[in-house]
Amino acid sequence: MIGKLYHGTAWYPELWDEAVIAHDIEKMKEAGINVVRIGEFTWSTMEPTEGAIDVSLFANVIARLHADDIDTVMCTPTATPPIWLTHRHPERLHVDERGTEMGHGSRQHICTNHPEFRKRAAMITEAIASKLGQLPGLVGWQLDNEFKAHVAACHCSGCLGLWQKWLEKRYGTIEALNEAWGTAIWSQWYERFDQVPHPGPTPFLHNASMQTAHRLFSMACVTDFAAEQAAIIRRFSSAPITHNSSIAFAIDNEQLFSRLDFASFDTYASAENYAAYLINCDLFRNYKPGRGYWLMETSPSYSGSLQSVAVPHPRGYVAAEAVAAYALGADAFCYWHWRQHRSGCEQPHGSVFSAWGKPTIGWDNVLEVEQARGAIEPLLLGSSPAIAEVALVYSDRAKAFLTTEPLKGMNYRGLLTDCYARLLAMGIHRDVIPESAPLHGRKLLLTPFLPYVSDEFIAKAMTFAEQGGIWIVGPFTGCRTEEHTIPTDTALGKLEQLSGIEAVSSYPFDGTGAIGQAFGMTAPLGMWGTVFEPHGAASVGIVEGGLTPGRSFLTEHRVGRGWLVMLGVMPMGEEGDAMLRAMLDHYASRAGVALRSDATSGTLVAPRVEQDGRQLWAIVNMDGRGGTVTVPNRSEDALTSEPLVSGPLSIGRYAYRVVRLPAMAK
Amino acid sequence: MIGKLYHGTAWYPELWDEAVIAHDIEKMKEAGINVVRIGEFTWSTMEPTEGAIDVSLFANVIARLHADDIDTVMCTPTATPPIWLTHRHPERLHVDERGTEMGHGSRQHICTNHPEFRKRAAMITEAIASKLGQLPGLVGWQLDNEFKAHVAACHCSGCLGLWQKWLEKRYGTIEALNEAWGTAIWSQWYERFDQVPHPGPTPFLHNASMQTAHRLFSMACVTDFAAEQAAIIRRFSSAPITHNSSIAFAIDNEQLFSRLDFASFDTYASAENYAAYLINCDLFRNYKPGRGYWLMETSPSYSGSLQSVAVPHPRGYVAAEAVAAYALGADAFCYWHWRQHRSGCEQPHGSVFSAWGKPTIGWDNVLEVEQARGAIEPLLLGSSPAIAEVALVYSDRAKAFLTTEPLKGMNYRGLLTDCYARLLAMGIHRDVIPESAPLHGRKLLLTPFLPYVSDEFIAKAMTFAEQGGIWIVGPFTGCRTEEHTIPTDTALGKLEQLSGIEAVSSYPFDGTGAIGQAFGMTAPLGMWGTVFEPHGAASVGIVEGGLTPGRSFLTEHRVGRGWLVMLGVMPMGEEGDAMLRAMLDHYASRAGVALRSDATSGTLVAPRVEQDGRQLWAIVNMDGRGGTVTVPNRSEDALTSEPLVSGPLSIGRYAYRVVRLPAMAK
Amino acid sequence: MIGKLYHGTAWYPELWDEAVIAHDIEKMKEAGINVVRIGEFTWSTMEPTEGAIDVSLFANVIARLHADDIDTVMCTPTATPPIWLTHRHPERLHVDERGTEMGHGSRQHICTNHPEFRKRAAMITEAIASKLGQLPGLVGWQLDNEFKAHVAACHCSGCLGLWQKWLEKRYGTIEALNEAWGTAIWSQWYERFDQVPHPGPTPFLHNASMQTAHRLFSMACVTDFAAEQAAIIRRFSSAPITHNSSIAFAIDNEQLFSRLDFASFDTYASAENYAAYLINCDLFRNYKPGRGYWLMETSPSYSGSLQSVAVPHPRGYVAAEAVAAYALGADAFCYWHWRQHRSGCEQPHGSVFSAWGKPTIGWDNVLEVEQARGAIEPLLLGSSPAIAEVALVYSDRAKAFLTTEPLKGMNYRGLLTDCYARLLAMGIHRDVIPESAPLHGRKLLLTPFLPYVSDEFIAKAMTFAEQGGIWIVGPFTGCRTEEHTIPTDTALGKLEQLSGIEAVSSYPFDGTGAIGQAFGMTAPLGMWGTVFEPHGAASVGIVEGGLTPGRSFLTEHRVGRGWLVMLGVMPMGEEGDAMLRAMLDHYASRAGVALRSDATSGTLVAPRVEQDGRQLWAIVNMDGRGGTVTVPNRSEDALTSEPLVSGPLSIGRYAYRVVRLPAMAK
Repeated sequence: MIGKLYHGTAWYPELWDEAVIAHDIEKMKEAGINVVRIGEFTWSTMEPTEGAIDVSLFANVIARLHADDIDTVMCTPTATPPIWLTHRHPERLHVDERGTEMGHGSRQHICTNHPEFRKRAAMITEAIASKLGQLPGLVGWQLDNEFKAHVAACHCSGCLGLWQKWLEKRYGTIEALNEAWGTAIWSQWYERFDQVPHPGPTPFLHNASMQTAHRLFSMACVTDFAAEQAAIIRRFSSAPITHNSSIAFAIDNEQLFSRLDFASFDTYASAENYAAYLINCDLFRNYKPGRGYWLMETSPSYSGSLQSVAVPHPRGYVAAEAVAAYALGADAFCYWHWRQHRSGCEQPHGSVFSAWGKPTIGWDNVLEVEQARGAIEPLLLGSSPAIAEVALVYSDRAKAFLTTEPLKGMNYRGLLTDCYARLLAMGIHRDVIPESAPLHGRKLLLTPFLPYVSDEFIAKAMTFAEQGGIWIVGPFTGCRTEEHTIPTDTALGKLEQLSGIEAVSSYPFDGTGAIGQAFGMTAPLGMWGTVFEPHGAASVGIVEGGLTPGRSFLTEHRVGRGWLVMLGVMPMGEEGDAMLRAMLDHYASRAGVALRSDATSGTLVAPRVEQDGRQLWAIVNMDGRGGTVTVPNRSEDALTSEPLVSGPLSIGRYAYRVVRLPAMAK
Repeated sequence: MIGKLYHGTAWYPELWDEAVIAHDIEKMKEAGINVVRIGEFTWSTMEPTEGAIDVSLFANVIARLHADDIDTVMCTPTATPPIWLTHRHPERLHVDERGTEMGHGSRQHICTNHPEFRKRAAMITEAIASKLGQLPGLVGWQLDNEFKAHVAACHCSGCLGLWQKWLEKRYGTIEALNEAWGTAIWSQWYERFDQVPHPGPTPFLHNASMQTAHRLFSMACVTDFAAEQAAIIRRFSSAPITHNSSIAFAIDNEQLFSRLDFASFDTYASAENYAAYLINCDLFRNYKPGRGYWLMETSPSYSGSLQSVAVPHPRGYVAAEAVAAYALGADAFCYWHWRQHRSGCEQPHGSVFSAWGKPTIGWDNVLEVEQARGAIEPLLLGSSPAIAEVALVYSDRAKAFLTTEPLKGMNYRGLLTDCYARLLAMGIHRDVIPESAPLHGRKLLLTPFLPYVSDEFIAKAMTFAEQGGIWIVGPFTGCRTEEHTIPTDTALGKLEQLSGIEAVSSYPFDGTGAIGQAFGMTAPLGMWGTVFEPHGAASVGIVEGGLTPGRSFLTEHRVGRGWLVMLGVMPMGEEGDAMLRAMLDHYASRAGVALRSDATSGTLVAPRVEQDGRQLWAIVNMDGRGGTVTVPNRSEDALTSEPLVSGPLSIGRYAYRVVRLPAMAK
Repeated sequence: MIGKLYHGTAWYPELWDEAVIAHDIEKMKEAGINVVRIGEFTWSTMEPTEGAIDVSLFANVIARLHADDIDTVMCTPTATPPIWLTHRHPERLHVDERGTEMGHGSRQHICTNHPEFRKRAAMITEAIASKLGQLPGLVGWQLDNEFKAHVAACHCSGCLGLWQKWLEKRYGTIEALNEAWGTAIWSQWYERFDQVPHPGPTPFLHNASMQTAHRLFSMACVTDFAAEQAAIIRRFSSAPITHNSSIAFAIDNEQLFSRLDFASFDTYASAENYAAYLINCDLFRNYKPGRGYWLMETSPSYSGSLQSVAVPHPRGYVAAEAVAAYALGADAFCYWHWRQHRSGCEQPHGSVFSAWGKPTIGWDNVLEVEQARGAIEPLLLGSSPAIAEVALVYSDRAKAFLTTEPLKGMNYRGLLTDCYARLLAMGIHRDVIPESAPLHGRKLLLTPFLPYVSDEFIAKAMTFAEQGGIWIVGPFTGCRTEEHTIPTDTALGKLEQLSGIEAVSSYPFDGTGAIGQAFGMTAPLGMWGTVFEPHGAASVGIVEGGLTPGRSFLTEHRVGRGWLVMLGVMPMGEEGDAMLRAMLDHYASRAGVALRSDATSGTLVAPRVEQDGRQLWAIVNMDGRGGTVTVPNRSEDALTSEPLVSGPLSIGRYAYRVVRLPAMAK
């Protein structure tokens, strides 16, 4: 798309004098930085007193960077409203679930749904977009910063009205809401929409439907605000718009990016937890298919604040991250941030230069990244990530359900990352996809921990299966309605009929002594689960012991040319992991999954397709232990065009290789 | 009393349609359910808008159940006020100790002392009682639900006035209050009652007297509300009234049940912690002597909510619970609940049927219970629990004292349960009794952790001792005044003189290295303790090492025909447990305690007396490991009337036996 | 100064009747108590209704004590305002950082900056001072009680205005504040002082500069209040004034005592943590050089409250504490308290007599103390503590910085106590000094964890070094500006030039694998650190492995006749402790530190100088294990005047000796 791989950084020139600015740009050029993100948090610099807007400083910076062949992503500064917007206006402040008003002094302290905020945010964004939107070198926009990173839904009185209106729009009548939420329970019943409260302080838990609806409402408000802001920018600029998001925040990324132009994310996962880094690459690639994603923020060394500091990345790891990100479809790999803050609360955060202008321990990492970027750029620009045959569904709406109902500590993000890490360790190339993604080209579909499965999704997935795909459902999938209630027809709604089983019992398995037997293995069963009586399906995994011995916890059912596999209960621990690998192995084989390698665990193989259809493998060691992978015969080293000898290819600690497979390998 | 043992369940027909109701009743009959509890939480169904009360749905349900030979306990719905009672009325809300107002959406969010709440609660209860009070099949009433399960004292401004009035009534003059609480300390001194605050947020701790008084005040308010509601019902119905209580809540059960007709409780103790289950049976039996108690709620399998789920009971345990409850004097054993909720926040809680109408893992448990109930019913109806020779005092007022003054994590409920579990494991039949219970028929009286001992209690217990009983006082007993201050005459007030000792030192023993020696054993001494110099008493246990070597921690003193035993310091750990068992063994023998078996730990023997005076032993294995017990020669199996061979009788895992002892065994 | 060593106690005669008062005084005399502290918390006794002040009770007590040869320290009662001062005046209450108003019922619940409080506090203090100030036997004053023990900065609206005024005075213009704090970051920028909020609730962290400034502001307010109160007293009394302080509270002791007449502190450190006890002695001695400090409160046995109790001190430990305190320069060793409270919230606290008038386990401790006091008094009155050659800087302002920026759990008090304990265990006599203390007579200066080092301090310390001293800087010293921002010139500001190094990298070392090598030892490096490139300095410690191998973490640089040693990174764990001891040993030797013994760890040697210049060693075993120390040849037992045989001198468990060194030893 853009003819280069971006190597970028966040930068705050408004905080420094001319000498520092000149020094920083010089060093950026030395390091190969070709894109810079500016403007975040700068509202008070642009509009120090209400109405007096001046963005010329940023116009100058963009021009200056452009003169040095550095592109710019411009941000809107709405995450940090100036003092004049909230001083003596407590009614504009964000209110948390305990009813506490947030105050000025940090960020995200305003209610982003307040009309005055929206008005002032529109004005500053219009001013920025109209003044800077046509500048040469401006290649993209970022809205705000990390929506809902520090806060979740606002509980202010203004939001109460919006919430009630949102409910009225969703349900039409209060009777419909009462029925949907089952409010006859505990006399929760409402006479009018204006009586429905925020889920604030109360002696025990709120209604599940209400809690989840409130999360969806809040996420929808964020999307609305983003769309409103994007529309303003689009009047003045054709540069594409994104937001630096995360799966850690209280937002619906799928909805959000449907209104934006490209996907980007921030991540500060530790080197030990590299799977938590890579899941972002495999997910954000799929929010805007066909368009590269950006890694908008990651540390050049370590993250930190006044109150915590992380362990710095080992030498070599940041370059491995960068190669992995590019290989998995990133257009850009960007740091937070170039120069250490001298003030605020993030001074202890890793940077490339210190506040006193010396290169930090991150500097060598940046040079390594640039060396790698330069080496792989030609190959990556001539290829694109291979569509994965295996797709794992990630849903922020499912996350909302599990946040309402964690039962025994079930954490959606952690559970999904575990599933993802298993595929990764097995050498299976995978896409992590949103619920709405099409399933063309997939062979194996995984939907764990998706409590509510929509009719649309079922229809799409059944078509996929009928055409030869294998859909592994569960665990904890299909067991809740759209309204976060319990189905009253069958335990798993439509899925039971379709999968040829009867869901016999649902209950918490931890501590019951139940053992699962499947694929010649045994493993303890745990978490909330459901066991089956096959009615047409074949039983693949059987429960031994516990409270429901003899029942199935894993079944498979022929659907057209494919299969519907039901995993009712989670195998636990190391034995459970082995069993789940056996299951994935079994169904990946049956489905004919070919995009897979024997790379040792800790080494990533990212398959890409060149314009002539040949396959490239970008191989990166992520765990610092080095590894090996068997490449097909007659492969060549794509960086040197040297043929590779047959046998396992060694990958050094945090090292990378790019291998071109022989033409018929595809 | 009622000619049957009840096997019951909570049920919420107002939440379901006709098909479900019909199905549920049919299944209840199949399972032998003969009593159903309805009406809890249904205020908004009965009075969806203010003043429009209609309880015909419940009249119909009662009639329908009656037609199927199922009795009904009707509940008042006051734990869940409808939205119209609190919407736009923040002044009616419960306020917690941090000053946070609770809101609508869960339960117990209203101030139960607010006049408008009281008025509306009276109206709904009158409507229910007047319409349903005479219906055939209505066999009992339950007020509200689990008073103060989720909240403790209310800190609203209305309650502030009531608190001040309550103080004025208690103390008469502010001078008396100041003297009683010792408010000269820290300039806490009050000029007028209207200045006394709630014990709300303050930089350090509140005055102990004030804290404890506030707890007593709050508990008295609950009792008043219950009495007020009971009086309304009694105008329309002769069915007896109860409340589903617990020793986990912030209420005074002794006071509460003095105003009600029969005692009942809810419990969700885990199978592992079966002593915490059984203590309820041995306690609630004694709140209304001569009248069976009800186990109003327990899980048919496991408890749960959106935010936690328990481990399901092992197969067989629920039946063991039921047999134990009946054998220990229960008229009823009831589940929460029959059909899984589809909405709210307790959907994950165990039930007998799922929301989609299938039997859960609880169903087989229910069938087991019914089988056992049917088998033992004739024997139990022809007998009643034997009065225990050993009585352990449980006091919610003592709990209030220790909640104010936990010192080093002293938890009253846990400490009492430990004492209870020791008696249980020793095979000693025991009553857990409130402070006001008479002591006729007792031989050994235990009053651990009773910081304040009233003159009335002392008089009663001294009479008991003079007539031959043994009273074991302590630890941490008698060391506080009624006003939760420290005695200024002697450490233990009147008890010192009476027990022939001088309390020499009181201090925290943990970590001091003090070792107790008694009964030929040694054990570390811990918790807050007091050591003695005998003045007439005999020293039975001596402190070695530590800070007060040579002092007594255990003494006995002849009192009339009995003894007063002072246990000043707690023996700790396994050695301490062994020493305490030796002590109990010693004094139980001396007191002539005969209602005792050699059942292996984990197996309960519940002695009962038949109308002809013969003794039955209901024997139940509670720990799932099975056990044995030696029954007297010439005993017979009361269920089969077969003679039992001499030697130990085996009890299987969670199994039960009923043994009739030979006539002279009593 | 006063011709005796005080042995004292806190006492609350206003709470007891005549019989108790008479008994208590008799027992005090029996125990050798010669000073009593009264009047704390007694405001409501003195002024039960607003304006009606009567302090005659206390005049009588002072006279009565005087008649019995017991001196009195009189307290102002301002820590506990009477009910009439806050009832219906919520605007006068202390507000915590979450915005919660504190209420009456405990202490420190009022805003001590509120004008009405200040006015009423002035009136009561004037009344006390004018009535009692000239009484015979009145030997001292204590202001308030433990300022800020339970609360930190007040967030009330009144304080908001004071805070803004304080800022205006500090910065002059809002532009200067904005520049100092770097408020362009995150649009924190202020237009006017009246917009600057308290650092209250906000979604993420507040600006470091603002947080630290707010702490300094609050500490300055405390000092102002103390100075205001002291000025009132001085109008009526020449008795010296103190405050019972602590390094655990949110106050600046250096500033505070600059306005008072003598230093005193309270401590309740456990016997195990005796270093945390002794650090106070070595610090508070230095707040008012040349004047003895008072240990105003310590427990005769154990501390406690309703919600916690400590382990009682082992027999002998309290006497060891007393001897150590006196030997290290205390004029007084005083208990909290004589008679157990019967009410309030501290009834479980250790005392000398119980509420019922019996001696507690503390009584024997008191007798032991008195015996020791009597024995050593003549020797101590004839000598004074030797000025230590080694000085460790303690700064409450540094504590404020680390409270704002703990990074990874860095706790200033704990870190300093660790440094202190190391010197103690090495047998090195030490002074713990405030930043402003002169350095005359010192040989080795330690300034660990002093993030901001003022120009004044640098100048003084450089002079010290130039004249032959050794200054060991760091770790975490000099790395922040006065405004709690990051230096923008060099990492460590002026210190870099002066110390002949370039600070190359600063980053968190934990988990990076870095190993320090120095003095022939290795140890893991941790916490936030800085590594150096020597430019003139010599490298003494080198980093191996990790992210900056080969860099120095320890350097030394010749400065005039002395040295500037830079410790950039903290050696950790047991190996780190050994390395730090080797470092201290090395530089203490080089500096010619002579006031040092070979006492086994756990045994204190407190060197003192007699009027004729001879040195005394007061030796105390603090760890209960006994110990040995080699005393110079021809030393004598100063208590018996017997010569000591050469070789190691044994010190029994918690025992003490006083040794007179031969005249030439000095």
